[in-house]
Amino acid sequence: MPDILFLGTGASLPSRERAPSCVAVRLKRDIALFDCGEGSQRQMMLSPFSFMRVACILITHMHGDHVFGLPGIIQTMSMSGRKEPLTVCGPEGIRDYLDAVLSICEGSICYQLDVVEALPGREIEFKEFSVSVFGTDHVVPSLGYVLRGHDSKGRFDRNKAISLGLSPGPDFSRLKGGETVCGVRPESVIEPPVKGFSVAYSGDTSPCEGLELAAAGADVLIHEATYADSEKEMAAKFKHSTSVQAAEAAKKIGCRHLFITHVSNRYDDRKVLEAEARAVFPNTDLAEDLRLFSATKDGIRSA
Amino acid sequence: MPDILFLGTGASLPSRERAPSCVAVRLKRDIALFDCGEGSQRQMMLSPFSFMRVACILITHMHGDHVFGLPGIIQTMSMSGRKEPLTVCGPEGIRDYLDAVLSICEGSICYQLDVVEALPGREIEFKEFSVSVFGTDHVVPSLGYVLRGHDSKGRFDRNKAISLGLSPGPDFSRLKGGETVCGVRPESVIEPPVKGFSVAYSGDTSPCEGLELAAAGADVLIHEATYADSEKEMAAKFKHSTSVQAAEAAKKIGCRHLFITHVSNRYDDRKVLEAEARAVFPNTDLAEDLRLFSATKDGIRSA
Repeated sequence: MPDILFLGTGASLPSRERAPSCVAVRLKRDIALFDCGEGSQRQMMLSPFSFMRVACILITHMHGDHVFGLPGIIQTMSMSGRKEPLTVCGPEGIRDYLDAVLSICEGSICYQLDVVEALPGREIEFKEFSVSVFGTDHVVPSLGYVLRGHDSKGRFDRNKAISLGLSPGPDFSRLKGGETVCGVRPESVIEPPVKGFSVAYSGDTSPCEGLELAAAGADVLIHEATYADSEKEMAAKFKHSTSVQAAEAAKKIGCRHLFITHVSNRYDDRKVLEAEARAVFPNTDLAEDLRLFSATKDGIRSA
Repeated sequence: MPDILFLGTGASLPSRERAPSCVAVRLKRDIALFDCGEGSQRQMMLSPFSFMRVACILITHMHGDHVFGLPGIIQTMSMSGRKEPLTVCGPEGIRDYLDAVLSICEGSICYQLDVVEALPGREIEFKEFSVSVFGTDHVVPSLGYVLRGHDSKGRFDRNKAISLGLSPGPDFSRLKGGETVCGVRPESVIEPPVKGFSVAYSGDTSPCEGLELAAAGADVLIHEATYADSEKEMAAKFKHSTSVQAAEAAKKIGCRHLFITHVSNRYDDRKVLEAEARAVFPNTDLAEDLRLFSATKDGIRSA
């Protein structure tokens, strides 16, 4: 089951308490980063996650508070002896940005760096999960992502199979291969496949249909909530969302848990936005820097 | 008298304890930053210094651990309503770097940003201090800086002037203007001008004559000491300095106080390098993140 670690939950500007945007999701041993604001690599060093296990960095849009941590973590991985390839995915501009910075700043990278300028609809496969890209609605070209762990096979009920007269060995193999054996159908002794855990990440966006479609049925939604419910006009003007809009998106996609993040510095008490969202979608938590959550059979728990 | 605040003292890679290179020197209300590694703006937010008072950022060379904090602090100043101009000075490449990053990452900057690609010998004037640029010796084009507070006028001894028969008013004005009045020479009643406080910063460099000449007589030297004395060969190979070489530079330029910084992560006990430097130049301190020092008449004191 996955772990979700908030590395930076600030909006636009960092503050004493909050680094700019970055969320890490760990599935088995591999980590995906959603966005990579300045200081993300050091936030990881302060956490139980190893930055060397990052398999991909998924950038939602080319605003500084979402990308200024990229060149540093890329170079640090190289200087720390990384050999595995790293994928960086983002909207148009991400390649020019990395090419310019890494060439001017003498960044010879000692591993394979795959930079993907993705369009909505793109699917990318990784060892422990797949990533699908959807379009969002912000003031610059912007993407959101759904990360899905691979489905795992259903449990084979060995004792039940024996009680139905089958024997370990070739009978079992044929059953597992999908054949009916001596009148026993596979689904009688093999539980249905377990769907991989899925996490959707909105990036900065107004409420948008693209997210609702792509993230439908996700277990967890991490959604921006830059503004409080009372500032819907500001949210619309700058193409952001309110706490309540984030909660409404969670309700529509039918997720189990909502995290709201990227709350504006204008709110001294961010818990007010959490309460607003909870009134619409009770299973909501306000994301805070360096808080770690683990998915369990019974839901998402603070670790 | 100035304050010196170490914001990042790491070498190449950040760590849990150390951000990458950045040192702030405050003279009256204005601040100069030497280098600007990733996370410098947030380190400032954790310190008593205001990032809005930064008048100039002086970059020594285009390695990521010295420049990756630049775009973020520049954008944050703009979003925080800065109106005063900001000067960023560095070697060739600094302009292309900022142009690329700020254009790709939508950085409209609402104040005057003066980017100076400087050559050794350049002098730049600011309200509270001047900066002179010198060449250093690293694996890429590299600069060092001497920051000098303006000289202030010597104290006028009003009582002594009266006891010598002069009267407040025109007599005093003429004396202060440099004239001898009724046989009293200005230097009899006006103390000599007070030399502005000066701080020299090496950046990453092998021991080099450029620094010794430009920084001669500086009050404080902030010098890299990437390696311990036992690893002179490594230091020479990668064009860095050892603890002892930093101390020898301090001795040659005749400064009052040496800070060593940029000690490699390979040393668990960085105090060993401090001890090595102190054996050559006793007034040495190891720089550590977020430590603040103030200059007093009696020397440099931890604040």
